[in-house]
Amino acid sequence: MKIIYIIFLFTVFSFTISHASVNDFCVADLKAPNTNSGYPCKPDANITSNDFIFHGFVARKFTNYIKLGITPATVTNFPALNGLGISAMAIDFDEGISSPMHTHPDATQLGLVVHGEITAGFLTPTSVYSKVLKSGDLFVIPKGMLHFATNSGKGKAKTYVFYSSENPRTHILDRLLFSNSLPSNLVAQTTFIDLDQVKKLKSVFGGSG
Amino acid sequence: MKIIYIIFLFTVFSFTISHASVNDFCVADLKAPNTNSGYPCKPDANITSNDFIFHGFVARKFTNYIKLGITPATVTNFPALNGLGISAMAIDFDEGISSPMHTHPDATQLGLVVHGEITAGFLTPTSVYSKVLKSGDLFVIPKGMLHFATNSGKGKAKTYVFYSSENPRTHILDRLLFSNSLPSNLVAQTTFIDLDQVKKLKSVFGGSG
Amino acid sequence: MKIIYIIFLFTVFSFTISHASVNDFCVADLKAPNTNSGYPCKPDANITSNDFIFHGFVARKFTNYIKLGITPATVTNFPALNGLGISAMAIDFDEGISSPMHTHPDATQLGLVVHGEITAGFLTPTSVYSKVLKSGDLFVIPKGMLHFATNSGKGKAKTYVFYSSENPRTHILDRLLFSNSLPSNLVAQTTFIDLDQVKKLKSVFGGSG
Amino acid sequence: MKIIYIIFLFTVFSFTISHASVNDFCVADLKAPNTNSGYPCKPDANITSNDFIFHGFVARKFTNYIKLGITPATVTNFPALNGLGISAMAIDFDEGISSPMHTHPDATQLGLVVHGEITAGFLTPTSVYSKVLKSGDLFVIPKGMLHFATNSGKGKAKTYVFYSSENPRTHILDRLLFSNSLPSNLVAQTTFIDLDQVKKLKSVFGGSG
Amino acid sequence: MKIIYIIFLFTVFSFTISHASVNDFCVADLKAPNTNSGYPCKPDANITSNDFIFHGFVARKFTNYIKLGITPATVTNFPALNGLGISAMAIDFDEGISSPMHTHPDATQLGLVVHGEITAGFLTPTSVYSKVLKSGDLFVIPKGMLHFATNSGKGKAKTYVFYSSENPRTHILDRLLFSNSLPSNLVAQTTFIDLDQVKKLKSVFGGSG
Amino acid sequence: MKIIYIIFLFTVFSFTISHASVNDFCVADLKAPNTNSGYPCKPDANITSNDFIFHGFVARKFTNYIKLGITPATVTNFPALNGLGISAMAIDFDEGISSPMHTHPDATQLGLVVHGEITAGFLTPTSVYSKVLKSGDLFVIPKGMLHFATNSGKGKAKTYVFYSSENPRTHILDRLLFSNSLPSNLVAQTTFIDLDQVKKLKSVFGGSG
Repeated sequence: MKIIYIIFLFTVFSFTISHASVNDFCVADLKAPNTNSGYPCKPDANITSNDFIFHGFVARKFTNYIKLGITPATVTNFPALNGLGISAMAIDFDEGISSPMHTHPDATQLGLVVHGEITAGFLTPTSVYSKVLKSGDLFVIPKGMLHFATNSGKGKAKTYVFYSSENPRTHILDRLLFSNSLPSNLVAQTTFIDLDQVKKLKSVFGGSG
Repeated sequence: MKIIYIIFLFTVFSFTISHASVNDFCVADLKAPNTNSGYPCKPDANITSNDFIFHGFVARKFTNYIKLGITPATVTNFPALNGLGISAMAIDFDEGISSPMHTHPDATQLGLVVHGEITAGFLTPTSVYSKVLKSGDLFVIPKGMLHFATNSGKGKAKTYVFYSSENPRTHILDRLLFSNSLPSNLVAQTTFIDLDQVKKLKSVFGGSG
Repeated sequence: MKIIYIIFLFTVFSFTISHASVNDFCVADLKAPNTNSGYPCKPDANITSNDFIFHGFVARKFTNYIKLGITPATVTNFPALNGLGISAMAIDFDEGISSPMHTHPDATQLGLVVHGEITAGFLTPTSVYSKVLKSGDLFVIPKGMLHFATNSGKGKAKTYVFYSSENPRTHILDRLLFSNSLPSNLVAQTTFIDLDQVKKLKSVFGGSG
Repeated sequence: MKIIYIIFLFTVFSFTISHASVNDFCVADLKAPNTNSGYPCKPDANITSNDFIFHGFVARKFTNYIKLGITPATVTNFPALNGLGISAMAIDFDEGISSPMHTHPDATQLGLVVHGEITAGFLTPTSVYSKVLKSGDLFVIPKGMLHFATNSGKGKAKTYVFYSSENPRTHILDRLLFSNSLPSNLVAQTTFIDLDQVKKLKSVFGGSG
Repeated sequence: MKIIYIIFLFTVFSFTISHASVNDFCVADLKAPNTNSGYPCKPDANITSNDFIFHGFVARKFTNYIKLGITPATVTNFPALNGLGISAMAIDFDEGISSPMHTHPDATQLGLVVHGEITAGFLTPTSVYSKVLKSGDLFVIPKGMLHFATNSGKGKAKTYVFYSSENPRTHILDRLLFSNSLPSNLVAQTTFIDLDQVKKLKSVFGGSG
Repeated sequence: MKIIYIIFLFTVFSFTISHASVNDFCVADLKAPNTNSGYPCKPDANITSNDFIFHGFVARKFTNYIKLGITPATVTNFPALNGLGISAMAIDFDEGISSPMHTHPDATQLGLVVHGEITAGFLTPTSVYSKVLKSGDLFVIPKGMLHFATNSGKGKAKTYVFYSSENPRTHILDRLLFSNSLPSNLVAQTTFIDLDQVKKLKSVFGGSG
């Protein structure tokens, strides 16, 4: 008797608020145009448990000749992150190898060393904050800081880094400065790097001018 | 003379800024896909005064056998609320009837008792905040709190509740736990509720497993 | 046996995350300086159920000679609203009385007529959106709109309005224009209202100049 | 040798993160429906340097009979501003001319006088903040304030104003009050302006009723 | 010659903008009262590289009798995270052990399995999203979802989870429902759990009433 | 008679909402600790019209030997901007002089050329967007982009730039890389700039290591 009533009650209750229960998540429809608040949502009907899992960190196979192995898990390959303000990247370093100086203009990076020894640091107008990190150490690079990491130990090193954005931009300094067509003398003038050096790096990174 | 000048001035002035005057509101186009910032806007041309009024609280007719009467006024049935960060719900309680334990994960609820006596409360990890409320009392349930309300007086009771979101999600605890196909022993293990009880409630709320 | 284990487990579990459970709410410390994100939080230790209830709508007693009765329930007299993005106001209208033209520059207003008949409307650069409302009707004034309400029926009328801000600013047009010391001719020049009229209204609303 | 390695490394590195580098900007697709977070983004492929430059301030030619010359540079005519939270307007004043009382409900205005003398001010419920400004002076009108500016010097004056929104709304008081069809007596009742004056201004600003 | 000029230039340049370079980060002053936007900032002068590193994941030593080992790294023990919108937690599971059903009302959780096998899932009003995860798998629990994880494999399992908030709230369902003084019959009435079961769980989790 | 009533009405009306009218602005108390949402507010009582005006652009006197003249008008020297999301800077360039490559990690820059010819540009991972600008041209540098400007014409040039933040951070590339104590070989390794060049620039910009 009471049970029948409860079933009835919940049917009514659920029906009346069913419209409002939308937006528990918003899996990205990557084929629609992006917006300032991320991608439009795919219809919920086709979403399954698999949408919320990312297998790419398992599947990655780095052969010997690759010195820096990177696998992103951001909204463009893990669409369930859309609007959720978080994403990840797996990064493997061969011995002695560094990630180049770069920024994530709109995301804080919280990194975890899971194997080996990493020296990581970021640069502010007045200081450098840098440390040698061992397995289990967590380090934070505040939003927008120019930073680097280098495998400063023996053998390989592995980190997982997480971002406070589902779609973090990555600006590698050399790529910004030396892979484009901005005239070399303008680069030299605005960076104070010698013109010869600018030209050399432009040739390395595919730039012209 | 001066008047003619003013008319002219305003015509020019208004024309030059007319493009910028868009977005005084953004009535939802519910047929377009939802986004992380709500629905795209319908063209302003078709909007009338009626779009900004909701009559549903007047029209509701609850017959005797309904114990808890709920009428939402959120973006999905009141599209003018799109992007405006507020919505409402009318809730009638028969004598002795409660709203079940639930959360609004992304909205604060500010409720007004207009008739009868309600006991309302919310639960935190360290306390319970609960009070008996009379007509005219206002009570706030901070964002994301598990909460309930019960008609603790004689006769019917009526409340109007307002949310700090135009599209508040509503998560009813029993519906989350017992109306799905998650194995009963997993529910028991992760809630510490006895397996028999889990199975009983699963049968009541339409779950399986 | 199992129960003892659970108790132990939860003691440990709760202890380790107890620091993280802060900020379920942030009741305002009104004696501390305000900030761009509201008031600093009072210590949780002194918070009780009473903090989350506002009785002011019950207690209000309007005598005959007051034509427009207003009781706000915002962060400054209901400090639990701090940071929660919602607040309320009770407004009573005598027959024929209006609320003056005003704006809430940073809050949407969602209003409910509970007694009588109200004509409410808001003004945009290109339209007026106005309607006659009866008891039970809900109306929305999008953020920042110049608006008014008038008791257009017989006898008293009563509304409850809710805001998408815990501390909505209220800018009454006459008070802005005519209660200050800005020279009358400057007011006339920038509003196109006749100078005589400006001077008359300045004398009514306590302005000078 | 090392150079070849670097080229290889960067090719791999850039490839793996290329998807994540989207959204450095979001030039508005003005043909798509607007949303609460601005316009959807145009594809990056067609964006050139010209998209980031606005020439309209150069091209404007005001003839004698225009007393107040206004050129906006907001998202609707400078689509690169979409999502960037800033825009501009150039405003020229003939001698003795004022901008009428108005608000930008959702934007702070930071203005720069580049020629002549301007008296600018804004009105709060309790004060007026007003000053005479000379070339080079910067003045701020906080978000949502009713404000004005008048050329209080000899000859023409010129200002550039910047807004904390890419699509600032502009609400001119007279246009809101007197260019619509709201009954004159309702305007009079809610503004306390005499009915005759309301009717006169309605006729000037194109209203009816 | 040119070098001397550059030094001079930069000294001037840096001096003039030095005030504006504040707020590259805001390490929490945990002794000051919390606010809606986090803790006030400690003076930069005392900040060192060590502030940006968290060693707690290394130092944790769980003895045999602890079945679920949890180490949070959130703003309250890693103050550099203040305002940065991200934090982490290390979680070890003994064989067969689960994390209890809980929510993080204001944070998305992105988890990484680094050892063993975990079955994780979350519950919505209409579905359950649940999967068996192996080492290397990443899973996301959208903001505010009731969720659980259980060690479904042989031997221990280990995960690192990251949150889209520096101070995520954690609401364990049993702790909310059964460790307080809310009358058992009210809990029974609003959860539909049998009264006997409520009383039993109240005694387990330290509640009364 | 009616006037007396209005005065009375407004006195009551204003009194009842006076508490809610706070926060029309929040002039920074720069002596209080900064927070993630800016500085706490100074009491309104001491605020005058002068607080909303900045004279520093007028007062600046650059002598011949200074090649790049910069005057910021941000929250630290113009405290009324606190919380308002906008600020400005005046920049003068001698002939042939450039602003060095730099970023504003958290602010869009909207710049206006008022005298002379400026070539300005920003760098993305895939393109350079650069243009020659004349007096009256407006250019936008989206948030977080590495950018530069150079006086590419005859004689001096002058720009005013506005930021979508009241406290924009400025990261000059050379200052980040070469004025600190990070070992030169680490800088060389992570920037691919030759070690000799790194050491030379470190000596120029005051770095060590």
